[in-house]
Amino acid sequence: MRAVDIVRKKRDGGELSAAEIDFMVLGIGREVADYQWSALLMATLWRGMNAAETPALTQAMIRSGSVVNLASVPGRKVDKHSTGGVGDKTSMILAPIVAATGIPVPMVSGRGLGHTGGTLDKLEAIPGFRVDLNLEEYVEVLGECGLVMIGQTEEIAPADKYLYAMRDATATVESIPLISASIMSKKLAEGIDGLVLDVKFGNGAFMERVEDARNLAETMCAIGRGLGKQVRALLTRMDQPLGRNVGNAVEIAECVECLRGGGPSDLMELSVELAAEMVLMGGAARTIDQARDHCRLVVDNGSALDRFRRLVIAQGGDPRAIDDLSLLPQPKGSIEVDSKVAGYVRSLDARPIGQATMLLGAGRTRVDSTIDPSVGVILHKKVGDRVEVGEPLCTVLVNETSEYEPALEMIGAAYVVGPHRVAPEPLILERM
Amino acid sequence: MRAVDIVRKKRDGGELSAAEIDFMVLGIGREVADYQWSALLMATLWRGMNAAETPALTQAMIRSGSVVNLASVPGRKVDKHSTGGVGDKTSMILAPIVAATGIPVPMVSGRGLGHTGGTLDKLEAIPGFRVDLNLEEYVEVLGECGLVMIGQTEEIAPADKYLYAMRDATATVESIPLISASIMSKKLAEGIDGLVLDVKFGNGAFMERVEDARNLAETMCAIGRGLGKQVRALLTRMDQPLGRNVGNAVEIAECVECLRGGGPSDLMELSVELAAEMVLMGGAARTIDQARDHCRLVVDNGSALDRFRRLVIAQGGDPRAIDDLSLLPQPKGSIEVDSKVAGYVRSLDARPIGQATMLLGAGRTRVDSTIDPSVGVILHKKVGDRVEVGEPLCTVLVNETSEYEPALEMIGAAYVVGPHRVAPEPLILERM
Repeated sequence: MRAVDIVRKKRDGGELSAAEIDFMVLGIGREVADYQWSALLMATLWRGMNAAETPALTQAMIRSGSVVNLASVPGRKVDKHSTGGVGDKTSMILAPIVAATGIPVPMVSGRGLGHTGGTLDKLEAIPGFRVDLNLEEYVEVLGECGLVMIGQTEEIAPADKYLYAMRDATATVESIPLISASIMSKKLAEGIDGLVLDVKFGNGAFMERVEDARNLAETMCAIGRGLGKQVRALLTRMDQPLGRNVGNAVEIAECVECLRGGGPSDLMELSVELAAEMVLMGGAARTIDQARDHCRLVVDNGSALDRFRRLVIAQGGDPRAIDDLSLLPQPKGSIEVDSKVAGYVRSLDARPIGQATMLLGAGRTRVDSTIDPSVGVILHKKVGDRVEVGEPLCTVLVNETSEYEPALEMIGAAYVVGPHRVAPEPLILERM
Repeated sequence: MRAVDIVRKKRDGGELSAAEIDFMVLGIGREVADYQWSALLMATLWRGMNAAETPALTQAMIRSGSVVNLASVPGRKVDKHSTGGVGDKTSMILAPIVAATGIPVPMVSGRGLGHTGGTLDKLEAIPGFRVDLNLEEYVEVLGECGLVMIGQTEEIAPADKYLYAMRDATATVESIPLISASIMSKKLAEGIDGLVLDVKFGNGAFMERVEDARNLAETMCAIGRGLGKQVRALLTRMDQPLGRNVGNAVEIAECVECLRGGGPSDLMELSVELAAEMVLMGGAARTIDQARDHCRLVVDNGSALDRFRRLVIAQGGDPRAIDDLSLLPQPKGSIEVDSKVAGYVRSLDARPIGQATMLLGAGRTRVDSTIDPSVGVILHKKVGDRVEVGEPLCTVLVNETSEYEPALEMIGAAYVVGPHRVAPEPLILERM
């Protein structure tokens, strides 16, 4: 077998066999050169992969590392994955909720990407919180707290780590088979039994068009089910940011508010819906209504927040920051963006809000950038809200180093205020 | 400027600017990684390059090295390039002819590729012949003999050398813009004023379809003319091997026969036509008929053969092998392939003949293979020839190490004999 022949086959629109895909994946850093893989990535972006190739790629990527053995933790282990959006912080809300219903949640998350924040970056806003646990600690914390939240380790799908970096450098990110295999290989290597997918569409999502998001959701469901896992996907709208806070520390604060029973309704609604699917999948409820009730109960009785506090302690964080949110990193200053007109917020595009937050320092512009956990945006007005002239639309949290002028401009332009009230569209479009 | 953005632009079907192309070509081995170039190659194969991009790529590749300064050699310097075929040995015939008419021919040639032989491999069948001259020697031999035949040096279009190897390893060879830029960058860096292109189509050519060959010819003409060079292209048929001999030493022998005034008519016809175009371009004749007469004259009066002898001497070869062809490498044995039926040769596919010759040892199956100069095939019958039962179609020249059984099978299958005489199609289809 030769890499060049495999590349040629895909280039010409052929179907790669599982053996050919294995050869490419297991040959990384050995008989397959980087430039051959990148040629295959471009050919795959061009020609696609079919319903046999994508699972084969996923399996090969899983086999490039090891699957975590969670046999020591009793119960069906369930996780959630979101394809990413702006203000998307449901993981930190739903993981403690689901854990509090008795379903273990082993979660391997990612960093911020493009205009979106990352769960790991947000968690690290909690003083002392460590996301770089090794697999032994991962299993230990899961057993102890019922949940664990870490970054991808060396053992988990190393081929994905390689291909992810390669795709980023060769403009081959936007391929549904490649995205699906990347997500599913990481998630299935965690040792889970079931997975709930939050597949986002809209201007703040990576898939702007709903058809692409549906295609991605279907591809990921097929991969997971083909490998004997329970998988459920929700197609959810990402046109305006989720919740009111965008940034790192401010998103943690908003999660804690949700776990305390407060927090914005859109964020809480989506978190509970995703959590309920997980609870149902994990077997702690018989119907989705029952599961939803169970989720609300563990918020109301404080046990979800307690789980989150235990997680913070187990992963080295300072739990006082959970009880006193002013102990989270605070910015030096804040700037209000006021409305120049009266009316109703007609739209509030998520993508420029996300990009502006990155510009403020909440994300990376280069691989080696450091993140400023304290900066961000607090949205006082969202789609459908009434606003008067001079009333603040949002507050921008800044530090000395923040280049806030272009950010402020982007944020201002993201808001469109019109004379008539527009009701926000429903968050959840479909369940698959 | 970032390589990834340039790759994305081409991936999405955009037109690359000259500055972007320069960045990629001059960034080879520096800021542009191998895997980014291969992704761009695949995207280019997919999306193509337009009439502005292909010349820009050619120019960047030329500028990656230096253009040979041939100012010390008087006269308009003219070269020929063939896109390659089986038994295609016109270079060794027409270069001495054109030189004998007073037009200098500086020629940088290639090795065998796929099922086709290479000028350099054939020349090395002459004992002692050196093709690895440096640029100083190259200019010196040209001044001395009026012609010179060498391989690509380090100075000539090094980016092409890099991309050529990269394309080979990533299944991105078959792109007309990439092929055109590769050929033209090497040829234009030789220091020539004019170029005649022999663009082949048919089963023994790299472009099997005439439309592809025409497209390639047009692209190359446009590049050369855009850079202020005289360029002329002939579209020529490569359905059966050119001439009677296929191999290395046997092709040299056939060239010498042609220069002695003998040799097969198809080979001589094409060599004279290409040579006449060069002579016209170089200014040693006013019309193509005059140029053709001049070419025939220098064969008849022995001055073309004399030029070839001088070239052999100047490049370290043994001139006795030119006067006594039995001093060329000889095979240990030969096998006749006889016709099983009586009739007329209806077709004699060039590709399997070329492939069989490679199997015998005349070409490389791997980069580091050694070539056996003595093996080959001598075709006694070609399309349109009468053959009786048991009469030899061809003679296969072999050595102990030749794996001749599969080769013999391929050669036998390449001949189709039928009851009616078929006239061979004209060799030259179009002049552009």
